[in-house]
Amino acid sequence: MEDFIFLFTDEEAKYKQIYQQIKWLIEQGRLKTNDSLPSIRRIAETLHVSRNTTLTAYEQLVAEGYIRGEGRKGYFVNEFEKVFLQEEQPSLTQKMKTNSRDVLIDFRAGAVDQQHFPLKIWRQMANQVLPLQRCYEYGDPFGEPFLKEQLVHYLLQARGVHVNEEDIIIGSSTQQMLIYLCFLLKQDFPSVILEDPGYNGAREAFKLHDFQIETLPVSENGARLEHLKHLHSRLIYVTPSHHFPYGVSMSIQQRQALIQWAKKVGGFILEDDYDGEFRYTQQPFPALASLDKSRVIYLGTFSKSFLPAIRLSYMVLPRTLVQPYKERFAHFEHNASSLHQLTMAKFMEQGEWTRHIKRMRITYKHKINALVAELDKQFGEKITILGEQSGLYLLVKVQTQCSEEQLIQNAQHYGVKVYPTSPYFLQQPSSVPIIQLGFSKLKMEEITLGVQLLRKAWITEK
Amino acid sequence: MEDFIFLFTDEEAKYKQIYQQIKWLIEQGRLKTNDSLPSIRRIAETLHVSRNTTLTAYEQLVAEGYIRGEGRKGYFVNEFEKVFLQEEQPSLTQKMKTNSRDVLIDFRAGAVDQQHFPLKIWRQMANQVLPLQRCYEYGDPFGEPFLKEQLVHYLLQARGVHVNEEDIIIGSSTQQMLIYLCFLLKQDFPSVILEDPGYNGAREAFKLHDFQIETLPVSENGARLEHLKHLHSRLIYVTPSHHFPYGVSMSIQQRQALIQWAKKVGGFILEDDYDGEFRYTQQPFPALASLDKSRVIYLGTFSKSFLPAIRLSYMVLPRTLVQPYKERFAHFEHNASSLHQLTMAKFMEQGEWTRHIKRMRITYKHKINALVAELDKQFGEKITILGEQSGLYLLVKVQTQCSEEQLIQNAQHYGVKVYPTSPYFLQQPSSVPIIQLGFSKLKMEEITLGVQLLRKAWITEK
Repeated sequence: MEDFIFLFTDEEAKYKQIYQQIKWLIEQGRLKTNDSLPSIRRIAETLHVSRNTTLTAYEQLVAEGYIRGEGRKGYFVNEFEKVFLQEEQPSLTQKMKTNSRDVLIDFRAGAVDQQHFPLKIWRQMANQVLPLQRCYEYGDPFGEPFLKEQLVHYLLQARGVHVNEEDIIIGSSTQQMLIYLCFLLKQDFPSVILEDPGYNGAREAFKLHDFQIETLPVSENGARLEHLKHLHSRLIYVTPSHHFPYGVSMSIQQRQALIQWAKKVGGFILEDDYDGEFRYTQQPFPALASLDKSRVIYLGTFSKSFLPAIRLSYMVLPRTLVQPYKERFAHFEHNASSLHQLTMAKFMEQGEWTRHIKRMRITYKHKINALVAELDKQFGEKITILGEQSGLYLLVKVQTQCSEEQLIQNAQHYGVKVYPTSPYFLQQPSSVPIIQLGFSKLKMEEITLGVQLLRKAWITEK
Repeated sequence: MEDFIFLFTDEEAKYKQIYQQIKWLIEQGRLKTNDSLPSIRRIAETLHVSRNTTLTAYEQLVAEGYIRGEGRKGYFVNEFEKVFLQEEQPSLTQKMKTNSRDVLIDFRAGAVDQQHFPLKIWRQMANQVLPLQRCYEYGDPFGEPFLKEQLVHYLLQARGVHVNEEDIIIGSSTQQMLIYLCFLLKQDFPSVILEDPGYNGAREAFKLHDFQIETLPVSENGARLEHLKHLHSRLIYVTPSHHFPYGVSMSIQQRQALIQWAKKVGGFILEDDYDGEFRYTQQPFPALASLDKSRVIYLGTFSKSFLPAIRLSYMVLPRTLVQPYKERFAHFEHNASSLHQLTMAKFMEQGEWTRHIKRMRITYKHKINALVAELDKQFGEKITILGEQSGLYLLVKVQTQCSEEQLIQNAQHYGVKVYPTSPYFLQQPSSVPIIQLGFSKLKMEEITLGVQLLRKAWITEK
């Protein structure tokens, strides 16, 4: 047969490109049953790759049934019908479909601003940390002491919480920490109260452990704590500084009432303070844990305030849970990269963390103001904006006959990706569709353009 | 009162050092009840720190009850007896004690060689990866596609396993992956078979999920698979390439027998291939998963072969488990740093990974040979060496009247830290003490000195 001639791209391994090329030729019918393939040496020569690379590609094709080796005679194409319909086919096709749809503006909430990221300083510190001996050993199972020390400082200063280093556990994400912690909690607490609507990621962690779930209704004006008296659980998961997704904050009276409740029932409050740093109208509110540490399990993360990719989170346990937790997990290795832990500690120690938060608060404030202004301009009274005082996203309640799904699809037609809030609702779905718009990673002009396109999608469309 | 004058070290945050200094002065009685403390401005001036730093130190002291603020009058020392015996006191003292004992040579197994670590290349690649847009978003919940692609290549080439990218799940550690996976497995498998002796870290993961545990006896000559017929479980966790801790490898006949067993009972084999790369006498054995993917859950890690600190591991699931796993964890974020995932993928793609493994195999081979030679020289027939053909540690069976604990303590008197194997044994404790000696992070001269000291500790000592 003829030689294959094609150009390699830099995006994938060469063996993979050879593999894909041959697979494609077979699927297209350009290579037919029992056609012989060029020898490994031949391919290596014509494509300027090593024989090993070619061999790997061929082995993969053999493994998947596309071709067969016949010893010295070489490699031959198998009958194509036999090969399929293999399991991976649909998923590949699906992938193509998703990729082909052009997304111009993505209002995704789970991302951070890249433009203002302190790339140079972080790199520099990461480079300084790498030669440290501790990086070549397993670290402390509950987190690097240097980072805990910085967190003690930070939590006191920024969140008003006095903690001891010993009470801090470092983890890779809020969900991972919840999964681990629930092994302990479920012994004493068969059920948990979750906010409705609320963060589905936490809900999934509790469901994994078969907790019974009770719900606390939350409206746009805040949690309806008076409902607590009808509930039986002694464990509650809340987002008091910035309710997810409504964006309201609990007042000091509500916070005190919650602490009183926990004391009365002898339970615990899981306080998820996922983006407490970003409040645009006042100073950030002190954490619930600042009122009474003994009843609060405090959960913090660097995912929103710094970088989701480094997978770095922490929790502060009440004194009574520290020993039981540490005993239960004494034989488990730590979950977050020591390199990232030490780099972050250095970053915090040198004041860079505080500078970063200040800078980002200003950046995000500009962005959210631009988003609100453009929404007002384009939609006026046709939408209601929720949660514009804090956080990295806001919600729009749309006065429309369309369903949430239709709004999302209409937006997609205009190249705009927006997100549903219905997965956050449990017992009481919203009567009008509420759409989530994350703005953190978008540029100012993208925000404006995105909203203009949404107007076309949602209003002119009808 | 007088000004504080002291020098800051670079090792801790300044606020912490001020806090510690004042706390120490109070505890020592040098600052007495109701003594006034210098004003915040005064401290800031004399110690050349910011007022904020001083304030944080003072706030911490107030929080812990050492001092009190009296508005404009300033800060005063509280009555010391009141303050305590605080909870953290004992743990601090303990810390001091542990630190003060001099360890000259540490035969710890959980570490890697630092001298030959490709620091420059890794740094360079990490720096290249950091500006990528994906680092500013949440990554794929099951791992970065680029890394999975490299793993497909690597597993085929080095471990003989044909896998699809879709079947790979990236995690932060073997234990974390086991904890997650067991949520799925325990629905169908109430019990699990573990090697005895075996890796206690895996055992703890199964215990966390309340699996019933059956044991498969393993001797220095290998697993006693004939015992399988007496057991009821359909799930088994094994270390076939390098048994932990004995270091034996399963023969091809044993591997086939195990696969046959899994097919017969309709179960799964969890293959932990934690350091399969490091075999010094022959080529690494192909993984169990290379024989039959449908019955094997393959667990791999970069902790031994690269760096424990980056917390990067992976598992390959049998086709039948892929969808159920992905559905179960669809709403969970990934656990391993995307930065590290992408850097490792680049490292592998450029052939650096293969080079690194080759280099380390030579380095570790030299080290283990030196260790074996020195043990032979110093101890002769008084010890038996186990597991010297592969891995990053070996075992010594010591002919002695001493207990394992005594051997460890005697070694410690000579500044040598060695490790027990008793935590790995379940039903059948070893009749003679077996000590674990990790050598990976030690220099050649440290290995020699360490063994010489051990001889003094264990033989001359009597």
